[in-house]
Amino acid sequence: MTGKQMKIVLQMVSGYGGEFKTWRLPEAKADAYTDMDFYVEMAQLAEKGKLHALFMADTPALVNDLTNETPMHSMDPLIAMTSVARATKHIGLVGTFSTTFNESYNLARHLKTLDVISHGRVGWNAVTTSTPATAANFGTHLKSSRERYGRAHEMIEAVQGLWGSWGEAAYLHEKEAGQFADMSKIKPIHYKGNYIQTAGPLPIPPSEQGQPPIFQAGPSSEGIRLAGRFASGVYANPFTIEEARDYRNALRESAVAHGRSADDIKVFTGFMFTIADSKEKALARRRAVLEFDKEELDQRLSYLAAMVGLNFQGIDPYQPLPKNWLKLAQPNPYDPRSPRALEVLKEGYSPVDTLAHGVINYHPVVIGTAGDVANFLQEWFEAGATDGFSIVPDLAHDGVSAFVEQVVPILQERGIFHEEYEGATLRENLGVPYQYGIRNED
Amino acid sequence: MTGKQMKIVLQMVSGYGGEFKTWRLPEAKADAYTDMDFYVEMAQLAEKGKLHALFMADTPALVNDLTNETPMHSMDPLIAMTSVARATKHIGLVGTFSTTFNESYNLARHLKTLDVISHGRVGWNAVTTSTPATAANFGTHLKSSRERYGRAHEMIEAVQGLWGSWGEAAYLHEKEAGQFADMSKIKPIHYKGNYIQTAGPLPIPPSEQGQPPIFQAGPSSEGIRLAGRFASGVYANPFTIEEARDYRNALRESAVAHGRSADDIKVFTGFMFTIADSKEKALARRRAVLEFDKEELDQRLSYLAAMVGLNFQGIDPYQPLPKNWLKLAQPNPYDPRSPRALEVLKEGYSPVDTLAHGVINYHPVVIGTAGDVANFLQEWFEAGATDGFSIVPDLAHDGVSAFVEQVVPILQERGIFHEEYEGATLRENLGVPYQYGIRNED
Ligand SMILES: Cc1cc2nc3c(=O)[nH]c(=O)nc-3n(C[C@H](O)[C@H](O)[C@H](O)COP(=O)(O)O)c2cc1C
Ligand SMILES: Cc1cc2nc3c(=O)[nH]c(=O)nc-3n(C[C@H](O)[C@H](O)[C@H](O)COP(=O)(O)O)c2cc1C
Repeated sequence: MTGKQMKIVLQMVSGYGGEFKTWRLPEAKADAYTDMDFYVEMAQLAEKGKLHALFMADTPALVNDLTNETPMHSMDPLIAMTSVARATKHIGLVGTFSTTFNESYNLARHLKTLDVISHGRVGWNAVTTSTPATAANFGTHLKSSRERYGRAHEMIEAVQGLWGSWGEAAYLHEKEAGQFADMSKIKPIHYKGNYIQTAGPLPIPPSEQGQPPIFQAGPSSEGIRLAGRFASGVYANPFTIEEARDYRNALRESAVAHGRSADDIKVFTGFMFTIADSKEKALARRRAVLEFDKEELDQRLSYLAAMVGLNFQGIDPYQPLPKNWLKLAQPNPYDPRSPRALEVLKEGYSPVDTLAHGVINYHPVVIGTAGDVANFLQEWFEAGATDGFSIVPDLAHDGVSAFVEQVVPILQERGIFHEEYEGATLRENLGVPYQYGIRNED
Repeated sequence: MTGKQMKIVLQMVSGYGGEFKTWRLPEAKADAYTDMDFYVEMAQLAEKGKLHALFMADTPALVNDLTNETPMHSMDPLIAMTSVARATKHIGLVGTFSTTFNESYNLARHLKTLDVISHGRVGWNAVTTSTPATAANFGTHLKSSRERYGRAHEMIEAVQGLWGSWGEAAYLHEKEAGQFADMSKIKPIHYKGNYIQTAGPLPIPPSEQGQPPIFQAGPSSEGIRLAGRFASGVYANPFTIEEARDYRNALRESAVAHGRSADDIKVFTGFMFTIADSKEKALARRRAVLEFDKEELDQRLSYLAAMVGLNFQGIDPYQPLPKNWLKLAQPNPYDPRSPRALEVLKEGYSPVDTLAHGVINYHPVVIGTAGDVANFLQEWFEAGATDGFSIVPDLAHDGVSAFVEQVVPILQERGIFHEEYEGATLRENLGVPYQYGIRNED
């Protein structure tokens, strides 16, 4: 196979999946949140499927009500990544660490150490964090987007500067000569920004990939500029192929504008799925999850009605809508998910089943067979909408194995997903260039 | 056996040992610094010997010249502890994390997560950090001791407050009832100190020991006060039994003054060793290490001369000093190690062999057979000088196995070291009470 192949990273969320009520399904392990063995097992399964990396979103705060729902994030991404690193050999480990709520020295140290002990498999998703609850945990309030992005640029510069402060060839450990390190190649950086000051050096040698590649998430123009300057990967959340293509092109242009090659930046489109033997079975499962919380189901039905400009008062939400109603329906221009919602209703699905399609999830959703999932991925990939996907099963416990055992072989057979890891490091597997220290910008 | 038994923790330093030139010995693994497999292997060996914990000192800075010497600390204690936690079942993991150069929320999160995934085996050595190079890495300068200790009190309060912010019984994960957590028991703490502010809650359930016990190191009166208020363990560095006993008593009184029991605080005395089949062989090994760096050996000889009020100019340092010289010698009152240095010289050891005894190391040193080491530990323990030891081999690569295979059985036979771990958690094994959240101070 010589054609282009998609990259796939797996989101583990808090151990359950991207749907926060699937923990009640019979397949679920109710205490997955605190069970690192389980986390590691899922990662090993993903590695068996040759997935490029685990991806861990994160916000250092409690961001949802846990009365009935599982948390949005893991207990601690650094500790989860370290645990997985020790129990796997090939899969990458991309973690989200806030540029706003970390100290540059501590963060540089954690990530480089993890990169060394994983033999070059770590990536850093550098996000600015926009949750007020997080700011309160750090005794402060949220700064303006301009200030947060200002600090983000400095944070990445400082961290990469610290990474490069131990010269590439400085780790000698030659017993005979008695030379442990070449101190002429280990130097402070004396970084002095408006937001960040750090002296260094950081006493850690390079990993097999030099240092972790940067990922970015956040589609504002500031976000696109940050990505163009630094990122090897971007986590994106478009809802249509057109939107995705425009965003990807903007990112590629931004890379070029910063003196890099367009291909140095890989876009990973968020994508959720429920796989079953038939679409009917997949729908039934998601219907069951929706019914765990009738009150929320009612709220979602109202939201769906608003999305298509209708009022569901007095209807049976388990029956398809009358044809004449659907003629009056109009997708709401302020929600990019509305056209798809209306399409599903027009296919004859009831409002509840339309919700079960995931039409108001925060990513596109495919529910159906492994073939349906493979078709979706192929369509987006071949349309130039994305370089790959950041996949989110509704529930990890059976979703990871379904993807690995059923979807991956189809993609491989079609020649659009690799049969083996390309190299030993995350950079090699992503197809992005080696880098050590701060890149020279022309 | 019903008598009192000593506690032992092992210091791994940067992977080599407490002597920074032993990495050149034939036994040494030259790249142990970056080899996590090796680190884990040593920890497993320590667990085989029923040692209570690994202890990791730390300063977030490069603090020594690495031209010929190994680093003083690991690449990253958090990542080393996590790696070890996943590969062991019983041994505790005590890590040093600065109260000055960490954010309370990030630190509370890391340590509690690690405590949960290790099933209650983590301890936090809360130190104020007094290295100027560290301050520079965090874009600041070193504050006064008063300010650093002021922040240390707040840091521990804030971290323990965050630990307790998720109620002990709040993690329900009951599928049938659909209740994941009891949000009425998960509450912000809104901590507002002079140095630290954090809101919480921290969304992490308790571990099997509730939360990590606190350790402390730093013998000033401020240090003793901090330990009396919070610490379950203290890492001490006395050089004589009398000094050790006084310090231990001061710590026990401080605990009582803070409404705790004297036995709630366990003192771990730092102690270094070189074990061989005979004392002569142990001396030969340490002589070889001294000779790796002739220049430094000369400096040490001058220092030794000053310690005993002599001048070694023109003598052969490989020959015992003349008797009449030794009569004139006087221990320097400003270095507590001087009496021991003079004692060794008077036993007829040459100046070089006296240095090989480790008389100017930063802890008491025993060089000799396993029996010699066991005798030393027993003497200090039974004199009430300490509750246990924080042991530092000259080189981990053979030192850990020598201690575990040769010293531990002697101590066990004498009934002064346990044959089995007392419980499942670090608190149980240390014999300190369970705690969750901030302790009510009367
Ligand atoms: C797909 C996607 C994923 C994100 N993941 C995270 C995350 O895990 N943690 C976080 O703090 N912020 C996350 N963000 C938020 C961004 O960091 C950023 O704060 C937000 O998008 C606002 O930035 P913008 O102005 O560039 O859009 C994510 C954003 C997007 C679009
Ligand atoms: C035995 C011992 C071990 C210590 N270990 C560390 C350490 O690992 N990291 C650190 O930053 N400081 C360490 N310290 C320094 C203390 O945290 C403290 O800054 C220093 O002793 C000054 O505090 P004091 O005024 O209470 O003596 C240690 C001190 C002692 C006595």
